Amino acid sequence: MELYGATGKILRINLTNGDVAVEKQNPLFYRVYMGGRNIALYYLINEVSSKVDPFDNENKIIFATSVITGTLIPGSSRFTVAAKSPLTNGYGEAEAGGWWGPELKFAGYDAVIVEGKSVNPVYIWICNDKVEIRDAAYLWGKETGEVYKAIKEELGDSKTRIVQIGPAGEKLVRFANISNELIHFAGRTGLGAVMGSKKLRALAVRGTGEVVVKNKIKIQEYAHWFAKNRLLSPCIKPLSKLGTSRYVSALSKMGILPTKNFYQGTFKGAEKISGEYLAESILKKTEGCYACPVRCKRVVEVDKPELVIESQYGGPEYESVASLGSNCGIDDIEVVCKANELCARYGMDTISTGVTISFAMECYEKGIISKEQLSGLELKFGNSDAFLKIILMIANREGIGNILAEGSYRAAKQFGSSAEKYAMTVKKQELPLHEGRGKWGVALGYAVSPTGADHLQAAHDPWFEQQGDSSKEIDFIDITDMNLFGIIEPIAATSLSPEKVRLFIHLQYLWSLHNVLDLCILVSVPESRMIKLEDLVKLVGDVTGWKTSIWDLVKAGERGITMARAFNTLSGFTSNDDILPERLHEPLPDGPLKGTYIDKKSLTDAISLYYEMMGWDIKGIPNKGKLIELGIGWINKLLSKYR
Amino acid sequence: MELYGATGKILRINLTNGDVAVEKQNPLFYRVYMGGRNIALYYLINEVSSKVDPFDNENKIIFATSVITGTLIPGSSRFTVAAKSPLTNGYGEAEAGGWWGPELKFAGYDAVIVEGKSVNPVYIWICNDKVEIRDAAYLWGKETGEVYKAIKEELGDSKTRIVQIGPAGEKLVRFANISNELIHFAGRTGLGAVMGSKKLRALAVRGTGEVVVKNKIKIQEYAHWFAKNRLLSPCIKPLSKLGTSRYVSALSKMGILPTKNFYQGTFKGAEKISGEYLAESILKKTEGCYACPVRCKRVVEVDKPELVIESQYGGPEYESVASLGSNCGIDDIEVVCKANELCARYGMDTISTGVTISFAMECYEKGIISKEQLSGLELKFGNSDAFLKIILMIANREGIGNILAEGSYRAAKQFGSSAEKYAMTVKKQELPLHEGRGKWGVALGYAVSPTGADHLQAAHDPWFEQQGDSSKEIDFIDITDMNLFGIIEPIAATSLSPEKVRLFIHLQYLWSLHNVLDLCILVSVPESRMIKLEDLVKLVGDVTGWKTSIWDLVKAGERGITMARAFNTLSGFTSNDDILPERLHEPLPDGPLKGTYIDKKSLTDAISLYYEMMGWDIKGIPNKGKLIELGIGWINKLLSKYR
Repeated sequence: MELYGATGKILRINLTNGDVAVEKQNPLFYRVYMGGRNIALYYLINEVSSKVDPFDNENKIIFATSVITGTLIPGSSRFTVAAKSPLTNGYGEAEAGGWWGPELKFAGYDAVIVEGKSVNPVYIWICNDKVEIRDAAYLWGKETGEVYKAIKEELGDSKTRIVQIGPAGEKLVRFANISNELIHFAGRTGLGAVMGSKKLRALAVRGTGEVVVKNKIKIQEYAHWFAKNRLLSPCIKPLSKLGTSRYVSALSKMGILPTKNFYQGTFKGAEKISGEYLAESILKKTEGCYACPVRCKRVVEVDKPELVIESQYGGPEYESVASLGSNCGIDDIEVVCKANELCARYGMDTISTGVTISFAMECYEKGIISKEQLSGLELKFGNSDAFLKIILMIANREGIGNILAEGSYRAAKQFGSSAEKYAMTVKKQELPLHEGRGKWGVALGYAVSPTGADHLQAAHDPWFEQQGDSSKEIDFIDITDMNLFGIIEPIAATSLSPEKVRLFIHLQYLWSLHNVLDLCILVSVPESRMIKLEDLVKLVGDVTGWKTSIWDLVKAGERGITMARAFNTLSGFTSNDDILPERLHEPLPDGPLKGTYIDKKSLTDAISLYYEMMGWDIKGIPNKGKLIELGIGWINKLLSKYR
Repeated sequence: MELYGATGKILRINLTNGDVAVEKQNPLFYRVYMGGRNIALYYLINEVSSKVDPFDNENKIIFATSVITGTLIPGSSRFTVAAKSPLTNGYGEAEAGGWWGPELKFAGYDAVIVEGKSVNPVYIWICNDKVEIRDAAYLWGKETGEVYKAIKEELGDSKTRIVQIGPAGEKLVRFANISNELIHFAGRTGLGAVMGSKKLRALAVRGTGEVVVKNKIKIQEYAHWFAKNRLLSPCIKPLSKLGTSRYVSALSKMGILPTKNFYQGTFKGAEKISGEYLAESILKKTEGCYACPVRCKRVVEVDKPELVIESQYGGPEYESVASLGSNCGIDDIEVVCKANELCARYGMDTISTGVTISFAMECYEKGIISKEQLSGLELKFGNSDAFLKIILMIANREGIGNILAEGSYRAAKQFGSSAEKYAMTVKKQELPLHEGRGKWGVALGYAVSPTGADHLQAAHDPWFEQQGDSSKEIDFIDITDMNLFGIIEPIAATSLSPEKVRLFIHLQYLWSLHNVLDLCILVSVPESRMIKLEDLVKLVGDVTGWKTSIWDLVKAGERGITMARAFNTLSGFTSNDDILPERLHEPLPDGPLKGTYIDKKSLTDAISLYYEMMGWDIKGIPNKGKLIELGIGWINKLLSKYR
């Protein structure tokens, strides 16, 4: 069996003793695991013991690509970062696009495993065969923009690609992110804090090789076709034009734009923070990722006496606009963008930052925390000044920021039991900005996601008709794609029927597949439908030479979900952790969906059914047969004592 | 949703009151069930109560086709017959090729449900919209050849296609078959006896319509391609030339040709009953099925003073050659063919006939039954004269034939406990002629098959290299096809490892799919590899207009296995019925595999694992989630009290 797509090499770097090793993996390994989350989970399950605290020496952080990363397939720019999460204490994972993943492949590696801890700050330099652990003491404490420049200058190669943490990661903010070229982020589950705990500020990569694919011409042809036809897709066009925040106004009209800590679903200021408004006001230019012509990323710039936003930090995605905007009651696009820029500067996940602050705002408005505790800040919904200040306090762990830096779940424990209901978290991770009460499949996705509430795990399909007419939303349904699974009839967004659970598992397989292949969901199924599932089968085959199929790929997605579940079981998670924040069980107070809530019994029933459909036992632990069916029977010996 | 492929009409005929009704089914019904076993099971599960005795008025017999039956796709000639089985008391099913299935579609029906019982012998005449229940009193008791001629003469249309039972079916021989044009047989599970119990001798069909397909040109192109290229397939070529008994000699050399009631795996006379020998001796011509250029059927003729074989009854398949030949110790091809012809004349399944007789032979040789009980017959292995006589005694229920007509399991109960170990049955049905000790996956297939031991349920892959070198057999493995399921590495034939069970379930899905689509396995995956799985997806899509996939089709196969399991659960079957005859747990006494046997504990473990992989509970009952995942959640309300 020959090896195409992958390099066959895994780089292992031990920060405790400085060892660097290159381990070879055989073609069958890639055939089974394919990439991204599956490769990361293979190593984490094998090597990171269930007893490990995320900040322990024994935790490992893995940067993994897939067999298609770095090819010309649009959307194949991404990479997975994974470790035991300081936020959830379970499987931590985040993906980012950009240029770093392809560069790692060009340097000759499919993944980097970083283990141990350095005593002093370091960064890793990977340049083809040359791998060095370098001093980063002089970079410690600096903002990401400064570090980015400094490393590039030090290495003297402008083509070097850098992932790094910011000061927030250094300070172990539990939702610290990892940035890539300053504008792409592996945001969720606090992986930046794992790097921080290892005193690892950055990984700089430069590669001059190429990814060897089986059928180069076919891939080139597809890339050309995609570039030529992308704007014919009704999904890609607005994405190019307005970015991911293209639907902010529409969501508010539909009553599902999370607003004021998920209290309500409509936001009066929605249009003022919309993609359209952004495009008309402070947008400077657009950016994209390796091999992708869509250019969905925004770059904003403001240069006013009272507010400066540096364009090197790009601009906000939808999740950031909603978390830092409507969800905190902020209707000023410049303030939203400044908050986004601060998160990029200091290295914090915009979702958890926004939702932790909205939690604090609600606690303040409800009198649970005082102005004194807030060092005098009037932290009300919509107070821009207090809002921007609290971001810095969190990043620097100053005052109450030191508590909020633990995330809203842990902060609520400190604020007292009356605060707990306002912490909008699942498995201690803050909800992304999709209103579960309007899309019950998304809510189910939050509840069972292995990484806690997570927009890249929730298996939802936000595509809806351009008019933004709420009655015309096609929730979760791409009629044609779902047909491939024998699912023919659309199912209401606000349903948790057995058929909805059936639909959900198939969507979840697909979403997971994207995190296995490190493929951008925005250009592919199920969201944009530009790269259809059948196309993907051909593309993966053309890259790898494998005889593959929809079955094979979708099962790789299921493999990822199941391995992540196994990791969490080993980490002590049980079915009791598959729950939603109380608020999603309370009626929406406004908008077209006023009065809608998720019934607890219905959710519990749906989760039980989900376990059964997944081949998991009643405790939510993958059964022996399922693991063997998925070709990962070796995990059984680890799980057997938990069943 | 438009309807292509299927006619959308189900014909229901009640023999008790003479009612004839045409019921319409909607396109979604076909999209979910697709055809054959799934359509039959849909009606049987819904309509035939678990309490029904197979000979009761309430049993129903269903003749079903699929959405591709009657198109130009090679191998699409088949139809499914299903009822509660008089042999197993569970789900009874058999498929046959030929011309009757397509003709039923041309007449405008996808399936015929026959219910109730007639007081007097009748046959059914279906001619497009005209459906009649006609007198068959004058046909009762006659051989199939006579009845075939008589009905054609009576109806005056030479193009009429006829399925019928023979005298054995009339006499409720529990392994009576249903013949189609005298040479194609729905052989197994005794469905001929169900027709006999209803006093239904035949169904004659004539249709002048056509099957409307979505993309006629694509199907025509494929049919032309197949016809032109079929002989390039290393599997199809010997099949055309030598028929299905092409590997008799090779199997004996490999030590897996069932011989003398499955006692041993080599047969000295193998070459004398081989496909090669048949071709050189009494072969008159070959025959084929509708739309198939392979012509794998043999037609033999003998016209000697001491032995006459009429060519209108065709000739033996592999199963018949082995069951009536090596398995009974018969090494005379003319005697084997005469026995085959007698089974066709009287309407008995050749497999169960041969294996019931081999059982009686062993009982006689072991002194369990006496010459007196045998009306003076010296029923030893290899005694041709006694062998041919006992066939007639069974067909006519004369003497000990009246006991053997109940099948070997029930006969053993009458002969006493010492006889029971010689009854080579699973779920009371006789083993087909594939030595489970040499192919442990086949053995597993026998144990868990919903219809009892059955060559069209066992999910095996008898393809091996042409040399017949036993070391080169590629058991169960079509490397390329299994790759589509992410199964890459070959697994030994004599293994019941977890990985083997994994391979087995995927093969079983495929085999079941063939019984759903009523597609001949000999021209398709996994046996001949001529119609690849990817081709099949395209062909089904071209016929129906569905957006389908490997996932969708393979899940339709799984749906069939699961529905059949549900029917059996409702009929009182439990995991205790998933066992093998004792002999397969004893060492093979000869040949290259001498000493090989199936370990009981390994089999039990494999079966438990199989249940878990199938989404069935520890009792082997499909769980709620699996049924919903397969889109057949309506069965849950029936099964809930058995779980």
